[in-house]
Amino acid sequence: MGIIFEKIAIIGVGLIGSSIAQAARIKGLVGQINVATRREETLEEARSINVGDAYFLNAAEAVVDADLVILCVPLGALESITQTIVPHLKTGAILTDVGSVKGHVHKVLGPLVPEGIHFVPGHPMAGTEHSGPLAGFPQLFEGRWCILTPEEDVARSAVEKLVQFWRGLGSDVELMDAAHHDMVVAITSHVPHLVAYNIVGTVDDLESVSKSEVIKFSATGFRDLTRIAASDPVMWRDVFLTNRDAVLEMLGRFSEDLSVLQRAVRMGDAHALEDLFTRTRKIRRSIIDAGQETDATDFGRAHPTAED
Amino acid sequence: MGIIFEKIAIIGVGLIGSSIAQAARIKGLVGQINVATRREETLEEARSINVGDAYFLNAAEAVVDADLVILCVPLGALESITQTIVPHLKTGAILTDVGSVKGHVHKVLGPLVPEGIHFVPGHPMAGTEHSGPLAGFPQLFEGRWCILTPEEDVARSAVEKLVQFWRGLGSDVELMDAAHHDMVVAITSHVPHLVAYNIVGTVDDLESVSKSEVIKFSATGFRDLTRIAASDPVMWRDVFLTNRDAVLEMLGRFSEDLSVLQRAVRMGDAHALEDLFTRTRKIRRSIIDAGQETDATDFGRAHPTAED
Repeated sequence: MGIIFEKIAIIGVGLIGSSIAQAARIKGLVGQINVATRREETLEEARSINVGDAYFLNAAEAVVDADLVILCVPLGALESITQTIVPHLKTGAILTDVGSVKGHVHKVLGPLVPEGIHFVPGHPMAGTEHSGPLAGFPQLFEGRWCILTPEEDVARSAVEKLVQFWRGLGSDVELMDAAHHDMVVAITSHVPHLVAYNIVGTVDDLESVSKSEVIKFSATGFRDLTRIAASDPVMWRDVFLTNRDAVLEMLGRFSEDLSVLQRAVRMGDAHALEDLFTRTRKIRRSIIDAGQETDATDFGRAHPTAED
Repeated sequence: MGIIFEKIAIIGVGLIGSSIAQAARIKGLVGQINVATRREETLEEARSINVGDAYFLNAAEAVVDADLVILCVPLGALESITQTIVPHLKTGAILTDVGSVKGHVHKVLGPLVPEGIHFVPGHPMAGTEHSGPLAGFPQLFEGRWCILTPEEDVARSAVEKLVQFWRGLGSDVELMDAAHHDMVVAITSHVPHLVAYNIVGTVDDLESVSKSEVIKFSATGFRDLTRIAASDPVMWRDVFLTNRDAVLEMLGRFSEDLSVLQRAVRMGDAHALEDLFTRTRKIRRSIIDAGQETDATDFGRAHPTAED
């Protein structure tokens, strides 16, 4: 594919930042990689696995001369980090981020971005339940979607360059309106996380069934939800603080449907239950057919062998 | 371990029945395996992979002379199948089942079981999202729990023999009161399934976000829930019809907690959100430490290689 950007700066080197750096290096998409993070310990972890070429505790220094700056910090930290770096951005540079809520990013960062900087917010829809530089791996974006939400007036050429970069990392790329993006992730991601967090929290407070019993017998469904509910707490706190309206709308739909389902259980409405459970099975099949999920039983989880 | 039962009859040969037969054979726990199922097509599938030694469309014939009879049919089919077989059970035989709701099994089957038959209801807490004889595999029960819920007056020796059988299949076994079992599964299994079915159903009805968008971007959380919501519709219909009270109680707790969480989102209560999300992460760690879950990232899902 060849080099797309001579120098990039990755600000924040958790799971996503670390994976971008590793993938960009392996794919040969960039010349130099500057890595910046606030905590010395995290920077040392990144250095220990050779994530970049130069390491900075001060983000303002890391962005000097960079052609692409990628903000990989939690949503709540985006505003202050942007204020810190904008005076040092090179004219003509592309500024992007990886935050899960795009309306918020446009609203808060948009006004801070100076003339001559191409602002193209982005959201790679990839992740795992682990965090930190050591959790990163270069295949994270392969076959996953990355959504970009530039305003209409952003230079086509800059958007196209960032599209090429994400394709180079292995992603499929789609352009979308920020508000619509936030509705899509509210239902595909934010409400599922909220529901998972909630049921795990419910278990934490029960008296009639002990927590140790739940843990012991979790393989019957509960444990799948705990993976989602093990995602980074600060990142997810910020998601719900910044995508409030879309989350509340989708949660309202969920709760309404749950009330109907609860009544079907109470009334013993066999037909309604079986009908729903049959419809939902088809949706999973569509996801597998779309290449967004493995067909392997139980996610391909390892089962112990019969010879143990 | 050696042979525990000379002849067993497996009535119903879906995922669970097929897996029991395969494991019992491989582990050498039984002499002869009779397999019965109502549908000819299913029986032929079972025969095609050599699940047993003899095949029956009539369950009454399959149980003749069997030392252990395992009912592996959906909860809703248990009563009629039991009526069919009881006149043909050998005196001294053990009768068990694999249904997910034990209070119902005691209430409905208990009165049908004649003197001289040892009735020991059971629930292997294992499964996948697939169904049918071909979905079965002999490692399904390895390291998974099997709960037995015999009444106090059942012969110790019969219970002990069934415990040995399940241990031989690879399970850990626990004895439990049927009512308590039903509360435990309501929160570890039934409510998680209900919530997963519900959110997948919500998606099916949205207008603001298209179903194809949800499928496309499902990897961000939603798809994990779809695996649970792809479980056998008839089996799960029967679960909710028969464990109504415990499910409604646990669902009430879930909904109450969800209202509190919804308010935290509406009010932007950062502290409450982060606090919950931090607590829930610990519960997953406990499940991994208890050997009930893999530590592998993303359940060990295959990620495409960088060289694709």
